[in-house]
Amino acid sequence: MGPEKELSELRHQVADKTKEMVDLVAARNALARSIGAIKMREALPLEDLGVEDDLVRLVITECEERGVDVQMGLKMLSTLLTEGKRVQGPQSKHQLITPQMMSARAREIEASGRHLLRLDVGEPDFRPPRAVLDATSQALFDFKTHYTGARGIPELVSAVRRYLERKSHYHAKDTELMVTPGGRFGVYAALATTVKEGESVMIVEPNWPAYKEVLQYIGARAVTVHTSLEEGWEPSVESIQTAIRPNTRAIILSYPANPTGKIITPSKFRAIVEVANDRGLTVISDEIYTDYAYIPCPSILEAEAKKFILTSSFSKTWAMTGFRVGYALSSEEIISRMMKIESLLITSVPEFIQHGAIRALDSDPEVSQNSAAMKERIEVASRELDDIGALRYVRPDGAMYVFPQAQEERFDSTEFTMKLLEQKGTTISPGSGFGNYPRCFRISLGQSRETIVEGIRKIGELLG
Amino acid sequence: MGPEKELSELRHQVADKTKEMVDLVAARNALARSIGAIKMREALPLEDLGVEDDLVRLVITECEERGVDVQMGLKMLSTLLTEGKRVQGPQSKHQLITPQMMSARAREIEASGRHLLRLDVGEPDFRPPRAVLDATSQALFDFKTHYTGARGIPELVSAVRRYLERKSHYHAKDTELMVTPGGRFGVYAALATTVKEGESVMIVEPNWPAYKEVLQYIGARAVTVHTSLEEGWEPSVESIQTAIRPNTRAIILSYPANPTGKIITPSKFRAIVEVANDRGLTVISDEIYTDYAYIPCPSILEAEAKKFILTSSFSKTWAMTGFRVGYALSSEEIISRMMKIESLLITSVPEFIQHGAIRALDSDPEVSQNSAAMKERIEVASRELDDIGALRYVRPDGAMYVFPQAQEERFDSTEFTMKLLEQKGTTISPGSGFGNYPRCFRISLGQSRETIVEGIRKIGELLG
Repeated sequence: MGPEKELSELRHQVADKTKEMVDLVAARNALARSIGAIKMREALPLEDLGVEDDLVRLVITECEERGVDVQMGLKMLSTLLTEGKRVQGPQSKHQLITPQMMSARAREIEASGRHLLRLDVGEPDFRPPRAVLDATSQALFDFKTHYTGARGIPELVSAVRRYLERKSHYHAKDTELMVTPGGRFGVYAALATTVKEGESVMIVEPNWPAYKEVLQYIGARAVTVHTSLEEGWEPSVESIQTAIRPNTRAIILSYPANPTGKIITPSKFRAIVEVANDRGLTVISDEIYTDYAYIPCPSILEAEAKKFILTSSFSKTWAMTGFRVGYALSSEEIISRMMKIESLLITSVPEFIQHGAIRALDSDPEVSQNSAAMKERIEVASRELDDIGALRYVRPDGAMYVFPQAQEERFDSTEFTMKLLEQKGTTISPGSGFGNYPRCFRISLGQSRETIVEGIRKIGELLG
Repeated sequence: MGPEKELSELRHQVADKTKEMVDLVAARNALARSIGAIKMREALPLEDLGVEDDLVRLVITECEERGVDVQMGLKMLSTLLTEGKRVQGPQSKHQLITPQMMSARAREIEASGRHLLRLDVGEPDFRPPRAVLDATSQALFDFKTHYTGARGIPELVSAVRRYLERKSHYHAKDTELMVTPGGRFGVYAALATTVKEGESVMIVEPNWPAYKEVLQYIGARAVTVHTSLEEGWEPSVESIQTAIRPNTRAIILSYPANPTGKIITPSKFRAIVEVANDRGLTVISDEIYTDYAYIPCPSILEAEAKKFILTSSFSKTWAMTGFRVGYALSSEEIISRMMKIESLLITSVPEFIQHGAIRALDSDPEVSQNSAAMKERIEVASRELDDIGALRYVRPDGAMYVFPQAQEERFDSTEFTMKLLEQKGTTISPGSGFGNYPRCFRISLGQSRETIVEGIRKIGELLG
């Protein structure tokens, strides 16, 4: 047989196999529909993680046996599962309102001239250090208005390195660091580097909604460990251990936590890192609230993680949200992959902003001042909340939020949030944005003491 | 049969189908290996777009017949094809050096103290308008240092709307506009909104490498239409028509073009848009160099495209590369999807930068001045290139580059670029970054007249 004929014959077989694939999907969909019908009839939940895990294990084993790339097999499985869920019928879409959506809505209302008590905003109302404003402006007039490398300007990278050395006695190399356009982009780049479609990442809930949203965008799954107010928002090492799924690649830790203000002990933190080490997981530690901590706060830099990515930002500590600048630290290899993503999507952080950020890192007086102010706000908010019998809360160890829970079992915080906005001109963020917490809502302490007091009193009034 | 038993039976069948899928991939891989072996033996190219197109058509038809989601089918096919290529053996990886990589390398060398003639940089050396610097600095000291909505501050959005009205007599609504962190992010968000894994986008080459890189990141394919210096870098409507593949969703147009400086006539542009309209393609028009145009330049706003996304930036016209700010215009629905991506990955563009950008839009004297300076540089570069017999080039109609081609048939511009850097301290970007142009290289005119003259003379010296 000539090569042309040979090729044509093989290609026919490839086409047949491709056709078979579609047939297989169709057959699988038919099964999914039948399963969906039974679940609907019996009022069973549509999703069953145990069943999915079995399929994940099956695919891993089969791929290994048949010499097929495991990551590719998991991606195909994920595509099949998504399609299966689509044909099983409409998912129960409970209305999800994230803090970002709440802010957008509040901004619209404010633009129409109505004054609001903004307890939704995840940004402090403090002013950026004067030295940062001066240095940013100076750099602007010095024509630091050009592209920089994706890593960031060497002066800022070194300044971050020295800052972390001072703070956590961690000796990094400049090649293990990069400047990011905000903490959010750092988290995205960290996840995009660590996890692929069809894989999963563990999250302790309640937590910042962006983690789940970014995972969904990547096509990966969040595996969640639920913590409760009753347990003081404390995750157990066992619950984390047992929740790890066969396709779990990373775990996100973030203390002080958004929205609870919880800080776990450094020894608990280390115990969780050990589990991650044992199971080959990357620890992604988002340490953005670390300067608003009122009990000893763990850092990944002091926990001997084998694989980790630290993300942080200038936003909260120095009230620089609107600068969009943060940083990440990991191995040289991971950072170089994260830099590729930053290069591809955005080139670099504005040059003059990077020059300004350098000055933040030696603005210790402002850090102390902001931290003390936030501590006082936590105390004020706690006193006000104590007066409201219908709410329970755990006093935050840090961060800039309180996450109270209504005593009433059937409380719907999304509905409450809407009523509070309409009737009391006060904005908060409903609990469902942070996980399965319909009875909770987040109060941000980013506003003045007066606003916090007034806002919480409005909450009390509406609760009656 | 009880529901538990029924479910368990169905789940067994699902597991069987999942196993079959892996078997099918393994069988398909075996076929791919055989095909790869024959191609290697017969020295045939590993990739055959015709064959892929047949498979794409087969999947579309089969999915439609069997009630399987087509987009999902194309994604599975794409995964299979990628795996197939992986097992066919190593792809011929010709060394690709993009302008971004070249800049990174040049910056490293410069950091070590060596002076370079930088003809690689894709940014003008002009200064941003003084009014922009003043307004940015003023906004900074006015504490415009907060998150904004992903669309951008309303004042800037309206200013962009009015600017486009003035420039192209196009009446947009503010809801059809958004501010982006640079033109690059605009292009990413446009593509991420328009094309999914397993689909493709048409690109006229040579062109900015980012288009292909972003498509690859998304998992989509670039379908390229090759143009040549001999044809004056002019694409034919027919070549575009015939290159459209069954999974092609969009076409990227960008005039004046990077790296050739080519501008096609508005009537040719409209003819291409008509093809896109007929075939249901979205036209993504990157109009970043539009103010450096020395013959009439088409805009998507004057071409009656049914579906389009305009992306642009403040970077080139106003020399604001280091501000990372641009804008996009499309339908309300597309813009709202692009805003979701911006929200998710980066929240917003720095607030004070947005305030500064407003002032760029009424900096007409600077636009004229920069445009005139670039025109003169094109003339200077052309005169210098005319003296080098070993090079041919088409005189740019606009933009800020020249893309000459060596007369010598076996010229390797990547090798030449490296030699030029080492022996002559001069940086250019090799043609392979922009498509299949090993005999070409890009000279950037972003530097002073003196640098351009000296750099081109070094090129002439090395060519001997």
